[in-house]
Amino acid sequence: MAKGSKKDSADLQGSSLMPEIRKHYFLDEYCIIAAERRKRPSDFMRAKSPAKDEKSCPFCPGNEDMTPPSVAVYTDQGVLVDGPVKIRSWKMRVFPNLFAAMVPSPTPPTTEWIALPGHGHHEVIVDSPLHNDAPADFSQEHMELLLKAYQDRYANYCGLDGVKYVSIFKNWGEEAGASLSHTHTQLVTLPIVPPLIKRELEAASSATFCLFCNIAERERASSRLVAQNDGWILIAPFYSQVPYETWILPRRHMSNLAQMDDDDRRDLAAILSHALRCIRSLLNDPPYNYMIYQLASNYHLNIRIQPYLSKIAGFEKGTGIHINSVPPEQAAAELRSRLPKG
Amino acid sequence: MAKGSKKDSADLQGSSLMPEIRKHYFLDEYCIIAAERRKRPSDFMRAKSPAKDEKSCPFCPGNEDMTPPSVAVYTDQGVLVDGPVKIRSWKMRVFPNLFAAMVPSPTPPTTEWIALPGHGHHEVIVDSPLHNDAPADFSQEHMELLLKAYQDRYANYCGLDGVKYVSIFKNWGEEAGASLSHTHTQLVTLPIVPPLIKRELEAASSATFCLFCNIAERERASSRLVAQNDGWILIAPFYSQVPYETWILPRRHMSNLAQMDDDDRRDLAAILSHALRCIRSLLNDPPYNYMIYQLASNYHLNIRIQPYLSKIAGFEKGTGIHINSVPPEQAAAELRSRLPKG
Repeated sequence: MAKGSKKDSADLQGSSLMPEIRKHYFLDEYCIIAAERRKRPSDFMRAKSPAKDEKSCPFCPGNEDMTPPSVAVYTDQGVLVDGPVKIRSWKMRVFPNLFAAMVPSPTPPTTEWIALPGHGHHEVIVDSPLHNDAPADFSQEHMELLLKAYQDRYANYCGLDGVKYVSIFKNWGEEAGASLSHTHTQLVTLPIVPPLIKRELEAASSATFCLFCNIAERERASSRLVAQNDGWILIAPFYSQVPYETWILPRRHMSNLAQMDDDDRRDLAAILSHALRCIRSLLNDPPYNYMIYQLASNYHLNIRIQPYLSKIAGFEKGTGIHINSVPPEQAAAELRSRLPKG
Repeated sequence: MAKGSKKDSADLQGSSLMPEIRKHYFLDEYCIIAAERRKRPSDFMRAKSPAKDEKSCPFCPGNEDMTPPSVAVYTDQGVLVDGPVKIRSWKMRVFPNLFAAMVPSPTPPTTEWIALPGHGHHEVIVDSPLHNDAPADFSQEHMELLLKAYQDRYANYCGLDGVKYVSIFKNWGEEAGASLSHTHTQLVTLPIVPPLIKRELEAASSATFCLFCNIAERERASSRLVAQNDGWILIAPFYSQVPYETWILPRRHMSNLAQMDDDDRRDLAAILSHALRCIRSLLNDPPYNYMIYQLASNYHLNIRIQPYLSKIAGFEKGTGIHINSVPPEQAAAELRSRLPKG
């Protein structure tokens, strides 16, 4: 068979270390070619890397030198920034991701199709100094501090030049994409509004009311309600892509975490902890992802938790439609049954 | 915390065994609640089921009684249909999926949000009678017969009342979603055009030429070309969601497999086998999915192969943007290096 020979400019890009955002040939869809994380075929071989212990874990106290300097360190004395002297007794650390999907100063790609420089920031938020700590075990105070960190880091990037979106998400468990077991959250800023959000905004533009306020109002009265408190509701959404998917919505309209007051944060910490504990109790500590959907304005903040229980296979990849074997009404009933009494 | 109590009609649906297609609250996105496949939390516990051997494999010759009756059996005598007497020496079998995501006669769902009955068909195509046969090992003749079966089954459903789309896909390897290791393909008919295809059609509606013909023409001359023959090209697409993703495109404009002539089928069998062998050789027999994108008309058939090498994690789920650590130009070069000489 004949083989491709003629080089094109994308080659140069392909060999650069700068991440780039490539647009689909003709759709408003994008992928990120993160050459900084470039892998060789051998990197994909199924040799399972042994779990790191406290000594070798770069996220553990005492190993701060294994990571880039912190941009924010949460301690009893408040929020600090790494100086020449490392801060040892911390409750949470934030530093740039070593394998960034976005970087502050990428070189512009030159290809015959459309691509944008991968301009942005990619941070790791170490949620806890304890190597074996689990988000479902966080105290109310601890979860509030984590949400405070999310608020701070979001506020730090929201509105920044060239930042169109701030994605905050947690991967828990190796199957859910956590490369290190030490609990952590990631933040990625993007120079574009991602397709999922863009489609929501397009739908909202033709509506005369907030679509998420409507969901919150109606699902509160449905059999898909899992829990609620003064500020928030936890539901198994009517449109559930995966078994036991849940959404957390603020009852009061707000666009992002930075708009939370202390009461909102207290209530969100409570309901997020509830959600994580119910999922762990019902499903034997499954891997999961949670994603925070938010925008600077004209949006309704929402948090989606997806346990990793079923595979995304050919049908999903070929149609964009997920097959979910657990009706959300059943999921909600089973999750409700796990809520602590009283 | 208060708990959801008020039942709604979706409850009834949730407790029925009929699959339903649920529309996103406000987006043109859908998920399938396949209650026929309903699972309990315990079904998701990580106890790994031991691989089946020839005796217990329902896809093996002699175990035909473990599956529903065949709707098509491919033998040396041609294509037959199961009668009272089971046909033993077969090369390929097609029968309805026991755990169907779509069924011919679902009951209409009644919910306060939008849902459609899961009207359709869900078939299993057993690619080979040999329990340990691998698609990458299929002979040219065998692969042509498989493509013939795809053509036949597609033609059988395409244009049928209520069939808006026919999804044909293969899951190879447990991590890629293959619940049984015995090589097989699945076919699902849908009463809607899936979102992925719908967005392509919307983009195409404003174009004055075939978008895929354009891709084929331009990528043929790029460093992303992996292989080509008289009828088809194999590329690592500029927009590659996952490492070593490849697309197969016909050089001649055709909308679906049923439009292939014998030469087209011969050439497609050759290039598909090439693709599967290069991927297996380069990446140590990775799990993979391939998906066939096709429509009755006004479309350009394409086949996408995605090896399962990296996790779909919080970032992808939160933005719809995939992070790919291998530039397609590198993937193409490495795949080309695995092509049999001459």
